[in-house]
Amino acid sequence: MTESELYSWLQRYEIQTPKHIRFGLNEEIDVDFFPAVLKVESSKVIHKSDVGGVVVGLHSNAELKEAKEMMIQSIASHGITLEERDGFIVSEMVMGDELYVGAVDDEIFDHVILFGKGGIYLELYKDIAYIDSEADEAEIIRAVKKTKFGKLFEGYRGSPHTLKEAVDVVKKVQKLLAENPQIIEFDLNPIKLTKRGLIAVDGRVKFRDKPKGPKSKRENRPLFLENRSVAIIGASTDESKVGYAIAKNAASFQGELYYVNPKGGELFGRPLFQNVEAIPGDVDMAVLVIPVSSVIPTIEKLVLKNLKNLVIITAGFKESGNEEDELKIAELAKKHNFNVIGPNCLGYYNAQSDLNLTFGSSNVHKGNLALISQSGAVLASLMDKAYSGNVGFSHLISAGNMVDLNFSEMVDMLVADPACEAISVYAEGIKNGKRFLRSIRRSHKKIYVFKTGKSEESKKAAFSHTGNLSGNYEMFKGLLEGVGVKMEDNIEALLFNPTYEVQKIAIITNAGGPATILTDYIIEKGKSLHALTKEEIERLDLAMPPHWSKNNPIDIIGDALPERYLKALEIVDEFEEIDLIYLLITPQFMTDALETVKLLKHKDWKHPVLPILLGGDMVEQAKQFCRSHKMQFFKTLQSATSFL
Amino acid sequence: MTESELYSWLQRYEIQTPKHIRFGLNEEIDVDFFPAVLKVESSKVIHKSDVGGVVVGLHSNAELKEAKEMMIQSIASHGITLEERDGFIVSEMVMGDELYVGAVDDEIFDHVILFGKGGIYLELYKDIAYIDSEADEAEIIRAVKKTKFGKLFEGYRGSPHTLKEAVDVVKKVQKLLAENPQIIEFDLNPIKLTKRGLIAVDGRVKFRDKPKGPKSKRENRPLFLENRSVAIIGASTDESKVGYAIAKNAASFQGELYYVNPKGGELFGRPLFQNVEAIPGDVDMAVLVIPVSSVIPTIEKLVLKNLKNLVIITAGFKESGNEEDELKIAELAKKHNFNVIGPNCLGYYNAQSDLNLTFGSSNVHKGNLALISQSGAVLASLMDKAYSGNVGFSHLISAGNMVDLNFSEMVDMLVADPACEAISVYAEGIKNGKRFLRSIRRSHKKIYVFKTGKSEESKKAAFSHTGNLSGNYEMFKGLLEGVGVKMEDNIEALLFNPTYEVQKIAIITNAGGPATILTDYIIEKGKSLHALTKEEIERLDLAMPPHWSKNNPIDIIGDALPERYLKALEIVDEFEEIDLIYLLITPQFMTDALETVKLLKHKDWKHPVLPILLGGDMVEQAKQFCRSHKMQFFKTLQSATSFL
Repeated sequence: MTESELYSWLQRYEIQTPKHIRFGLNEEIDVDFFPAVLKVESSKVIHKSDVGGVVVGLHSNAELKEAKEMMIQSIASHGITLEERDGFIVSEMVMGDELYVGAVDDEIFDHVILFGKGGIYLELYKDIAYIDSEADEAEIIRAVKKTKFGKLFEGYRGSPHTLKEAVDVVKKVQKLLAENPQIIEFDLNPIKLTKRGLIAVDGRVKFRDKPKGPKSKRENRPLFLENRSVAIIGASTDESKVGYAIAKNAASFQGELYYVNPKGGELFGRPLFQNVEAIPGDVDMAVLVIPVSSVIPTIEKLVLKNLKNLVIITAGFKESGNEEDELKIAELAKKHNFNVIGPNCLGYYNAQSDLNLTFGSSNVHKGNLALISQSGAVLASLMDKAYSGNVGFSHLISAGNMVDLNFSEMVDMLVADPACEAISVYAEGIKNGKRFLRSIRRSHKKIYVFKTGKSEESKKAAFSHTGNLSGNYEMFKGLLEGVGVKMEDNIEALLFNPTYEVQKIAIITNAGGPATILTDYIIEKGKSLHALTKEEIERLDLAMPPHWSKNNPIDIIGDALPERYLKALEIVDEFEEIDLIYLLITPQFMTDALETVKLLKHKDWKHPVLPILLGGDMVEQAKQFCRSHKMQFFKTLQSATSFL
Repeated sequence: MTESELYSWLQRYEIQTPKHIRFGLNEEIDVDFFPAVLKVESSKVIHKSDVGGVVVGLHSNAELKEAKEMMIQSIASHGITLEERDGFIVSEMVMGDELYVGAVDDEIFDHVILFGKGGIYLELYKDIAYIDSEADEAEIIRAVKKTKFGKLFEGYRGSPHTLKEAVDVVKKVQKLLAENPQIIEFDLNPIKLTKRGLIAVDGRVKFRDKPKGPKSKRENRPLFLENRSVAIIGASTDESKVGYAIAKNAASFQGELYYVNPKGGELFGRPLFQNVEAIPGDVDMAVLVIPVSSVIPTIEKLVLKNLKNLVIITAGFKESGNEEDELKIAELAKKHNFNVIGPNCLGYYNAQSDLNLTFGSSNVHKGNLALISQSGAVLASLMDKAYSGNVGFSHLISAGNMVDLNFSEMVDMLVADPACEAISVYAEGIKNGKRFLRSIRRSHKKIYVFKTGKSEESKKAAFSHTGNLSGNYEMFKGLLEGVGVKMEDNIEALLFNPTYEVQKIAIITNAGGPATILTDYIIEKGKSLHALTKEEIERLDLAMPPHWSKNNPIDIIGDALPERYLKALEIVDEFEEIDLIYLLITPQFMTDALETVKLLKHKDWKHPVLPILLGGDMVEQAKQFCRSHKMQFFKTLQSATSFL
């Protein structure tokens, strides 16, 4: 596309370009906008500047005419003869700050828009936000505000430009992308911020030869979360086998539960059916814990039992080079319309029907958090951590190789289930990013995501003006945050996200130093400390020793005994302007950490109260007490604030 | 200073300025450099642009003359009449990328230079590095490379500018600051990067009326670390008293140890002297654990015993509003030449003479790390953590209110002691920053610093073109990193910094997911994973199951029993290109974490081997084993990498 063609094309989408006129080789140049730029337009000239094909700062038609003559000579001196179809473009010189708006066709997210500082500093400062091509106005504004350059749309240094102008130009690019699905790369750089509005001065677009096919999608799936009958194929009496662990964890299921093992016999008071055919009735959900070679034949039998949902624990598929069997499973699932999680996974848990089909741990507290994990080991260690940290789950899904159900479909299911209040996702990679974004956009539940693969991508110099931005962690983070996901940088934060909103915090402490560090962490997370009112200070004055801090963090001095902690907590819990209280206990000479945490059980507090037990041996008993009494507590200042 | 005066002054320090000529009010303008800028110079005109006092882009003396006439009219129209002493400056217009070099007179660090992106984006991008006014060339280069703008001195987009040019301009500013100690603020913005070199186009300088006095410094202090006789004033037989805890911790001291308590009697087989006078002999070091009111009278008695060093545990001084007594103590220390740590501190520990004068914990491992902490509570919790984490100390200094010895003096002492190999500092604030930098510059030991007060400062919008930058965390971090300090963002990292160098790491794991997260953390810390050689892969192939990862992280598969871990470790420990091995153990169905960590004791490994035990109850026994066998281990991926 020549510059004049590009300008015309942009104007079709109402993207403003500089005033310009194209002149044929022998046409007389006559314009009325100055200063002007003269450029040659010829398919024979690739790099205009190299052959003297660009002249800037021309102030009159006389200067333009002279410049054109010299340009023809200069080009000729490089051995290029211009032809009849070649010509010149004269455009006005536009001054202003430089914006960049571009787009890529990402492997995961399809069309993604980039917005930020343009000009030569684009690559140096990488001050760029990512915007989904389907983003709504609120998402666009959130993204613009993430960039420093975005401040120029909010009055920085008297800049007259508005957020509306930023939103408008992005919306125009969204329209352009929607109407041109074959775009691979698109750059407007720079777009000048002028008094006449935003003017795209230079640009570049690259199309693919044939359009991308749509990503496949299964419709009318059976419900995953409701299962009246469950069969465990490969239930085992051998305690060292995974089939035993699952059978045991599942034993308390409230619906029909069938165990299947060719050896027959009995397990946990139930018969072991020797094969699938022997099961008396339909099987809503089946779990496979059998050798790889038996998986497909068993599925073929299960479909005769009206199978709706299948959990394949068995490993030995794609991760071991066996992609063929995975494809067959996917085909069967489509043909017979059942859902699959796995293969190569840790299983599935649903608190409502007491259905624990995992071999992770039999110790699961019931709660309202759903956790989806692409790694079985991560799920196992989070389950273990959650149990000792007293976190409860509504659902656990070990996604495994994800041969069938993808993240979007799992999120859609969980969003529809009132038992689940929030969803945590551990993701290593996702496939259909656009659909995932749509699922989240529709959802009104809190969603937390931890994604691996940061460094791998950063090594690849992920950001490049022309390069492939696929799998870029920053893009992933930007797009997900755009639709309201909280991106975690600590895996354990997936467990400890509270269901309550936290903005203002109170700290009760027996030591100023650690409270200062805690304050730093809180502020870094964008939360704040409640500023004590005069009245609140007076109430504490009556109960605390004279040198308490008179301030939040509420330092009740190093010699604080449990009673003083209790008194302070009783007063602070009455404060209305707070959302959360940290009880920071450090091992000082007089400290009795155990008795202090015991006092927390005396009362139902109005606010969430989270004890932080710093130190090792000196607070060990207090930690044990919290564990055995299912009290959430933290051992470090960082973990205590990781979920904020 | 007018622009022409500023230019002349800068030229004295060989800082290049644009060609320029000053003309009197009625002098005829005649220059030979174009395009040129015309500006008015008058003490009556503060904001030149507001009254039409600046015209740019003038191409001839005729245009200059015309512009001058219009400028006089424009200024007159604002009610200002120019006088005989006023005039005009004509300077060449200089084009180029814009650098900023400035300086502030910081409360803590005195003169500090700022270097980075200039022009209007200075405040927006804050792409600035801090450089000590005494920094050497290596420090300057390190700082320049920290900024993104610095890439323009390393060939970014074909930029012809060199690091030498950047160093030169900073050195010129260093000289200018050294010769003008009364400078409070100094800005060169922009300095244009041109073919003729770096040209300072615009600038601003602000002087104080009278020069700052030098910061006081005590000379010829007695040695702090060597004490043959120690007295504990306030040693107590009452187990609930701090004076008991210290007397008990100190009991194993290898020199002369005296206990003093007016009640008299005996304690731990030693007599309790009723007063200082009764002590038979000199007192090299005394510890005070007595009421505030007795502190000064007791010191006055101790100086008669040739007191060299004093540790004041007693609280109730500046932190409780009693600054007066602190000043008196400082005076006494100067007059009688003894050192003081405290008051309001946790005490002092020196491994070499088994001298534990802290009331933190009697459980201290001996080692080669010195720890200075400004907070007693932070020291107490780190001591506790260090004991259970098997970290040993050479010295512990609880700095308290720091009435006398400051961080620089403590670091100097520790640097001189061969028993200490590395120094960790927990600092809330420091006073004489320049001296601290000098101490560290002289030292060749590793120094780790954790500093609080990040958020407090960030709230204050720490960076401002004209504002006060004192106490800015970023400045503190930049300057300390400049002299080679490792700044920690996790307080526990102060304990776990290894004495060995880590660059290449191997991970042995039973789970891919957590290993991926660990990899991300390692790369974020600037370290790397060792890439396995073909030969190394072949050696592992012989011992591992067929589907091990063939790659580092060395994933030995979820069903790994302790023996497989051992085999893998034996092979990996032979690899020469690695500095550290993480043994990542996740709770999977077959995992036996306890037996796996037990196997680590079978052998002396060539490389450091750090077990990471993810999960809760399922790995609890393994953690207990590590604790009781003094094996360092980690419970989270973040803490395992915090020290890298």
